[in-house]
Amino acid sequence: MGLSPKPRIVLDAMGGDYAPANEIAGAVEALRQFPQDFEVILVGKESLMREHLAGHVTGNLALTVVNADEVITMEDSPTAALKQKKNSSIAVGMRLHQEGRAEAFVSTGNTGAVLSASTLILGRVKGVSRPTIAAFFPSEQAVCLLLDAGTNVDCKPQHLYEFAVMGSVYVNKMFQIDRPRVGLLNVGEEESKGTVVAQETHQLLKSAPINFIGNVEGRDILKGTAHVVVCDGFVGNIVLKFGESVPSFLKSRLKRYADQSFLKKLRIGLVRTPLKTSLKDMDYEEIGGVPVLGVNGVSIIGHGRSTPKAIKNMILRAAEVARSQINKHIESTLAQRESV
Amino acid sequence: MGLSPKPRIVLDAMGGDYAPANEIAGAVEALRQFPQDFEVILVGKESLMREHLAGHVTGNLALTVVNADEVITMEDSPTAALKQKKNSSIAVGMRLHQEGRAEAFVSTGNTGAVLSASTLILGRVKGVSRPTIAAFFPSEQAVCLLLDAGTNVDCKPQHLYEFAVMGSVYVNKMFQIDRPRVGLLNVGEEESKGTVVAQETHQLLKSAPINFIGNVEGRDILKGTAHVVVCDGFVGNIVLKFGESVPSFLKSRLKRYADQSFLKKLRIGLVRTPLKTSLKDMDYEEIGGVPVLGVNGVSIIGHGRSTPKAIKNMILRAAEVARSQINKHIESTLAQRESV
Repeated sequence: MGLSPKPRIVLDAMGGDYAPANEIAGAVEALRQFPQDFEVILVGKESLMREHLAGHVTGNLALTVVNADEVITMEDSPTAALKQKKNSSIAVGMRLHQEGRAEAFVSTGNTGAVLSASTLILGRVKGVSRPTIAAFFPSEQAVCLLLDAGTNVDCKPQHLYEFAVMGSVYVNKMFQIDRPRVGLLNVGEEESKGTVVAQETHQLLKSAPINFIGNVEGRDILKGTAHVVVCDGFVGNIVLKFGESVPSFLKSRLKRYADQSFLKKLRIGLVRTPLKTSLKDMDYEEIGGVPVLGVNGVSIIGHGRSTPKAIKNMILRAAEVARSQINKHIESTLAQRESV
Repeated sequence: MGLSPKPRIVLDAMGGDYAPANEIAGAVEALRQFPQDFEVILVGKESLMREHLAGHVTGNLALTVVNADEVITMEDSPTAALKQKKNSSIAVGMRLHQEGRAEAFVSTGNTGAVLSASTLILGRVKGVSRPTIAAFFPSEQAVCLLLDAGTNVDCKPQHLYEFAVMGSVYVNKMFQIDRPRVGLLNVGEEESKGTVVAQETHQLLKSAPINFIGNVEGRDILKGTAHVVVCDGFVGNIVLKFGESVPSFLKSRLKRYADQSFLKKLRIGLVRTPLKTSLKDMDYEEIGGVPVLGVNGVSIIGHGRSTPKAIKNMILRAAEVARSQINKHIESTLAQRESV
């Protein structure tokens, strides 16, 4: 993958719950807003895509269409689907990227399938044993990137070490944060705390060429103590899904309160907007998807429910990652340890 | 420990951040509200306790005082402190319970020290390999008890199996919930999901004499999918602390919103009460502490910041647990498997 002055972004048009409508609307929006910055290649069922494109004014946009006859659904088993559906939009799109005909791949489809395709088709960055998916948490401070978010449930210290390096490089390059603070998610601050794996990882991270601030606890995630929070995919997935459930829990609690009287209902009505605004970055729209880190390319995964706006932001993010040479930095940072 | 018609509750008067003031106020409140139901034995520095008692009307209350010269602080290392401070209020109080001079022990002190004292002085229930501390989560449904909440970070399937049984018995007896739904915290519903330990635990639980509903995910905790959520203490502690940080995160977000304008500040002012009410059971006051499960006795731990009301509720809970013969039920339920 070379550095293109105008990155070509493959968008899996068949991915999300509202595909291809939202995908196409998002691509058109992105290109209309930044017509000079990137190209978008839509991959999916051509006739269906053309039908939807007819509803948009696309005259001058750098938008092309590539046919892929098959679709991997959310219900498909990732590895089986990749083997059986060689012409799925995910497989076709990822191959375009691998062959150098695009600089990035974006999908709101089956997460497992995108991850598998990224690893199998693009291959791993040198020095990375396990590619990973990161996730963003809202935070009282700047950004908080947690990884692994669910990909690798059983991890060795070496894997967690690599996650720490990848997360640090990603946050540094994408958010212009100098020496991001990296914390190891644990049950206490002392080095001796936690599982055997956590204790060994702590020792490894102490000599990592990153800004390791030590252990952080569950309460530190939203507080923003660290920019990068490292954990295995078992813990990561559980905390992520717990966090995602908070807004709907609050909603149900406030509804219960509102149901007590008319006055209380009025009161709650007043708070809807502030609460929604405050919880905005607990939702996916603004984030621009989450990156698959550690693969030889740029692969971004979005939520199945992504709106056109969310998809637009994913495309912008993908273009930015493609320009940033993140993988080079991951490789060289990981090599620093191996040469010690 | 026999069944007493009027349980005697040992209260560690030196435990919390506001000891002994809140402890004594809580004990007096509890006895005044239910003068016939239990006795309270205050353990701590006698002169200090008497000083504080002088500020209350205690004439007819079933309240006695036992001296303990030493105090284990929050900063003390649990095991070292227990060895060195033989006359700490925790050690003296727990021995009263072990010797049959009281039916329960309650403390808001150093959690690790209370746990160690419970295990070392009271001993384990037959069939239990590792005592555990459970924690309550707020839930859209009934109660949600999660265990282990941080005691045992590296767990084997057998340990998790025992947690499941203990949690099920506790929720059944304490909340009168018939066949509580027990879920294994995992990253997906399918049996094949999760770490090797999670997969093996799933198989064990399938044949447990409890109402095992399968795997539950992070989002199911607040939703109340299960009454009992089983996980190791590493995951449990992280999710618990994450959850505890949600109210202050919301507060900081709403403050940020309020700071934008006077009108917005007014709006947020109106919502303070509903939000506080809605988040009430995310706080410790109402819960009545968390139980140490699997020890030969009744040991309840409360938050260091406990108010008199919180301490009152812990005493009521302890009396209830003492009457319930929970340990007998844990022992017989665990034995059901061993005899298979």
